[in-house]
Amino acid sequence: MSTHPFDKALALEHSDIRAGHFTGVTSPDYWNMVGPFGGATAAIALQSVLRHPDLLGTPLALTVNFAAALEAGPFDVQATPVRTNRSTQHWTVQITQPGAGGTPNMTTTATVVTAARRETWGESDMPMPEVPPPESVKRFSIGPAGVAWLDRYEMRPISGGIPAKWDGGLQHSESRLWLRDAEQRPLDFCSLAAMSDMFYPRVWLRRAKHVPAGTVSITTYFHAGPAQLAEVGTGYLLGRAVGQQFFNGFFDQAAHLWSEKGVLLATSNQIVYYKE
Amino acid sequence: MSTHPFDKALALEHSDIRAGHFTGVTSPDYWNMVGPFGGATAAIALQSVLRHPDLLGTPLALTVNFAAALEAGPFDVQATPVRTNRSTQHWTVQITQPGAGGTPNMTTTATVVTAARRETWGESDMPMPEVPPPESVKRFSIGPAGVAWLDRYEMRPISGGIPAKWDGGLQHSESRLWLRDAEQRPLDFCSLAAMSDMFYPRVWLRRAKHVPAGTVSITTYFHAGPAQLAEVGTGYLLGRAVGQQFFNGFFDQAAHLWSEKGVLLATSNQIVYYKE
Repeated sequence: MSTHPFDKALALEHSDIRAGHFTGVTSPDYWNMVGPFGGATAAIALQSVLRHPDLLGTPLALTVNFAAALEAGPFDVQATPVRTNRSTQHWTVQITQPGAGGTPNMTTTATVVTAARRETWGESDMPMPEVPPPESVKRFSIGPAGVAWLDRYEMRPISGGIPAKWDGGLQHSESRLWLRDAEQRPLDFCSLAAMSDMFYPRVWLRRAKHVPAGTVSITTYFHAGPAQLAEVGTGYLLGRAVGQQFFNGFFDQAAHLWSEKGVLLATSNQIVYYKE
Repeated sequence: MSTHPFDKALALEHSDIRAGHFTGVTSPDYWNMVGPFGGATAAIALQSVLRHPDLLGTPLALTVNFAAALEAGPFDVQATPVRTNRSTQHWTVQITQPGAGGTPNMTTTATVVTAARRETWGESDMPMPEVPPPESVKRFSIGPAGVAWLDRYEMRPISGGIPAKWDGGLQHSESRLWLRDAEQRPLDFCSLAAMSDMFYPRVWLRRAKHVPAGTVSITTYFHAGPAQLAEVGTGYLLGRAVGQQFFNGFFDQAAHLWSEKGVLLATSNQIVYYKE
């Protein structure tokens, strides 16, 4: 069995694992237009924490700041557990690349909180919207040429797909789609982190205009343990994303990811740069 | 004119300002039950960035991770600009307190993104709910004994106030309220950051049950420049908060803050620990 492209993208080497220093190489399979797909970078930040031998619990919160696009090639990841409590652990992560004159080039900062969960009362105040089942929704297959990462996912847009015409007509900013890895792979925290960044910039939908745009910072909260992820397996997630405020070059979008059975597995927010 | 309590709480000293190292003292005025009001701590993290001489632009995104409650007394803040681009700047912030044996005690990690904004197309997809004007809504005045920070704010709950009876009846998790500083003070980025953390834990409302709860991490996006804040001045903000998913000890809540004129100034999300 060959290694899944996502596992190749997440592969990290280490010399002294307790020091939390890892090295990796950007993946052509998850390349976006001017750098790696942000979701893959977020997953790498999380992966460095999950690989650390001092890890407590499972992921709870992940914030990734995209300071600069990674260039194709090797990178360094430093994961540091800065505080361990009884039920939570706080991490800082930085991804750098070798820069001119040997000075490391800071590309990504992140913070991660992991937690040892206990069974408690639970409830959802964000029920899954009623949508047609995945099998009845046509698969999206026309990625812009050269955007490799889009081919790594099976996306079935229910509503709010990428505008067919860039005619400048103002619309709403909500998308709903079924999604999963194109090549089957059981859901885990890293792939859930990546899928949280799967939604194209809301400004394109809102304006039906293809302006330059890129995520500046994303925060994802995980609402699942290993059992909930195992229940999904290689099944679909329902993703929903909506824009909130568009103001002078930056907007935010809120995203929700449910299992096909309707369990809200992750909530995510990001702030995105746009031009014009 | 005496100094406003919020400005006292934000007062930071520095020896070498270019090194980004500041010292401060926790404020009894903004004390919560077992430490400072998280909003005040978030504001201090932001303030350290705003005071730094290398600052580019105005606040765009702020993530604050509450690793441990600060103890009453002095603290250290380290603000570091890790990457400066043409229109965005990325910061890491850490708040520590002197610990046993001289080892610093990590209480708070934060990341901040600031941005030089340009005028662009803009729109809101999150209109302000229709609510009665502030003057017609009764002010909330019964804070739990000993919770000083509640007295620093004028809150006028429209719906979803703290349950009058802890009878365990399941309800919704949405609150709407008018709010501003109790002692008048023109809105700025730091007070907006603090007000984003002003909503009591949604789990109390959802369950009408007073369980132990505390914010683990908060992320706030700013959708305003100095002109939009100046327009608010000492006026009211409409705050809205709602829970999303409650699962095994942690839930998230989404918050929105509009000016009285209906401009969405900030969107904020937090993940919160709860017991039972």
